[in-house]
Amino acid sequence: MWTELGMDLEAHDQLMESQDNLFAKIHLSQENRPRAMALFDQAFHASHTERVAELWEHRKKGGKAIGTFCIYVPDEIALAVGVVPIPLCGGSDWPVSYADKMLPRDICPIIRSTFGMAFSDTCPYGPLKDFIVGETTCDAKKKTWDLFGFKVMEVPQKKNDIDRKLWRKEVIAFKDMMEELSGKAVTMDNLAPAVRLVNRKRQALQRINEFRKLEEPPISGLDALLVSQVVLNMDTGRFVTAAEELAEELQDRAAHGISAYQTAPAKRVMIAGTPSPMGYAKVQHIVENAGLRIVVDESCTGERFYRDLVDESPGRLEDMFNAIADRYFTIDCSCFSPNTERLNNIQELLAAYRVDGVIHNILQYCHGYNIEAGAVDNILKEKGIPSLKIVTDYSQEDAGQIRTRVEAFAELLDERG
Amino acid sequence: MWTELGMDLEAHDQLMESQDNLFAKIHLSQENRPRAMALFDQAFHASHTERVAELWEHRKKGGKAIGTFCIYVPDEIALAVGVVPIPLCGGSDWPVSYADKMLPRDICPIIRSTFGMAFSDTCPYGPLKDFIVGETTCDAKKKTWDLFGFKVMEVPQKKNDIDRKLWRKEVIAFKDMMEELSGKAVTMDNLAPAVRLVNRKRQALQRINEFRKLEEPPISGLDALLVSQVVLNMDTGRFVTAAEELAEELQDRAAHGISAYQTAPAKRVMIAGTPSPMGYAKVQHIVENAGLRIVVDESCTGERFYRDLVDESPGRLEDMFNAIADRYFTIDCSCFSPNTERLNNIQELLAAYRVDGVIHNILQYCHGYNIEAGAVDNILKEKGIPSLKIVTDYSQEDAGQIRTRVEAFAELLDERG
Repeated sequence: MWTELGMDLEAHDQLMESQDNLFAKIHLSQENRPRAMALFDQAFHASHTERVAELWEHRKKGGKAIGTFCIYVPDEIALAVGVVPIPLCGGSDWPVSYADKMLPRDICPIIRSTFGMAFSDTCPYGPLKDFIVGETTCDAKKKTWDLFGFKVMEVPQKKNDIDRKLWRKEVIAFKDMMEELSGKAVTMDNLAPAVRLVNRKRQALQRINEFRKLEEPPISGLDALLVSQVVLNMDTGRFVTAAEELAEELQDRAAHGISAYQTAPAKRVMIAGTPSPMGYAKVQHIVENAGLRIVVDESCTGERFYRDLVDESPGRLEDMFNAIADRYFTIDCSCFSPNTERLNNIQELLAAYRVDGVIHNILQYCHGYNIEAGAVDNILKEKGIPSLKIVTDYSQEDAGQIRTRVEAFAELLDERG
Repeated sequence: MWTELGMDLEAHDQLMESQDNLFAKIHLSQENRPRAMALFDQAFHASHTERVAELWEHRKKGGKAIGTFCIYVPDEIALAVGVVPIPLCGGSDWPVSYADKMLPRDICPIIRSTFGMAFSDTCPYGPLKDFIVGETTCDAKKKTWDLFGFKVMEVPQKKNDIDRKLWRKEVIAFKDMMEELSGKAVTMDNLAPAVRLVNRKRQALQRINEFRKLEEPPISGLDALLVSQVVLNMDTGRFVTAAEELAEELQDRAAHGISAYQTAPAKRVMIAGTPSPMGYAKVQHIVENAGLRIVVDESCTGERFYRDLVDESPGRLEDMFNAIADRYFTIDCSCFSPNTERLNNIQELLAAYRVDGVIHNILQYCHGYNIEAGAVDNILKEKGIPSLKIVTDYSQEDAGQIRTRVEAFAELLDERG
């Protein structure tokens, strides 16, 4: 299989080794983890082993798959006709420099990591997808998709009626694309169960993250992040089962007052900003090691991913498409102007999770979240909540400097009492 | 006046001195310039003197003005009701670092220069505008407008029917804004002459630039750029008069075989990519000093600005608004996905101006034009036209390095014969 996938096995081994070392250091080193986290540790590892084999089998049987890069692509519609969406966002530092062959160095590490894997023949998913569906959420992604001739969904930039209309049209165009690819029509019979399944996934994530509101969270910020990362790669049904098992265990731990943290109650922080794809948890690791507790992730690999459900009630297909489009239209990505919705959502999260401080985790060259951090800070200042902005990439070179800044921030929070 | 404008006069003197020195070095040092260029030299200087006084008087009489940052804002509609659009794009290196107070350092120098001027109290236009109308053409601009609460026109990202519809709505919303600001209705009586006037401006620029197709252009690339830069600041009527005078002189020079260049015929290059606002001509200066001739500017301060006219024929107001919207919708900014129109336009320009080589002039952190340069290069490779990509900012620090690269590029072109 690996040879047929055109992989450079030696390079892939190097990549896996660097990932496994990092994973052991960041996740496995934690004490008192929920037992069910083993399912997600396994899923992390499987993303370059069993999951690849699974999709390989799916393809052998004539199954279809698409590559995606953004939580705007409506999974429900693909899954309805048996097309598997494979999120391709890279989270590993190892292949980043390989991207320099074709792309500028000063774009975000997500794109560079992904294309670095492709160019270094270490991404097993390249030959497993039929095509890629990108979107227009930022300049660097949009133009990279154009350069490589990907299909592109237009995400509008305002939230007026005409924008909603435009987005609904894009969702229908995506539906047409999936029908053409699969040779199957999307019907209420296949769409309704897909909508319910993807909603179950979001509900399981909601349930897990709800426990982070507790004074003593039964799951660490690092583990909650891992769950939100692997969900993008796992088979949806299998994820729901694993997530429900974890939620049960967390329920039990909460009932018995079992905390994920060994330390005395500490300050509660929100991580806000850019996504942290699987393989990347540099800032989060530093933050929790500095004694802070990450209680909420305000990002696409956090609350933004599972906050809203698709309305399951429509009985007509057309209404169901609108319900799907409208659910994705509520996503508060920094690509919107103005992005009032995000500022409101952040305020709700600050209260619900009793946040003491906010850490902006901004991947370098993401102008959107970087500049919007200023608007978030205006609100935080009013509320007297301190914030720290970290602009970084996937490398470990600035880890020491970030640690110093985070420790100073932790002290600042402590001094405030 | 200067005190009432809240200017820091000492800092402003420093800014002016740095600009005047650069201007003398870049433009005035050229030999054999058209006499009429004196009008544009004067306009450059006037942008921080007489033009300010003129707008000051306009305001004193109750006149209105808006700040703009992009050639998507339809001047015709503002001018119809007496609102003066003031393009605010900064081109000076001097104030750039002042922007760091409020904005990330890794965004494009245009934004940093503009906000640096605002924060250092060296921009006289701040108090002369009623409000600013930004747009969504790139992440950094869009989010900066949001941060400062500017009004924003949504430029769509595809060119489908629904996008055209969306854009037409934005143009009507802009019309409403101008009516509210001025207290006057836009009618055929005031709009039609404004459309004609702005078209005259574009036609004058077309006529001037047409002479650059000649074997021996009667105007240098640097001077053609200057004309395209000051047009954004000058009173439209006055610009048309000056541009027509220049065009007449160029006609005469062309008839007598008078070249702007003192050297033997040299290689002809296109400058492609990001805009070069007034005050910035670093790359162009290096290129022409290396003996190359810039015969066409493929940018917003070049062909993109004057290529298309608004259809003057509609007799009904509604049709006129559509004609205006549709004209602006043809702009081939890298914000579109895909941007096939730009690739086609570049191919036409390459032939029309008999271009030997292309220099991508990319302002740092402009992901759009930076990545799209790859798509342009794919076409150039097919045609066997060499290209050089320069990613730079407004500082002079990399001038030596750029000179070395440009000279090597000039040699490469020469060797090809």
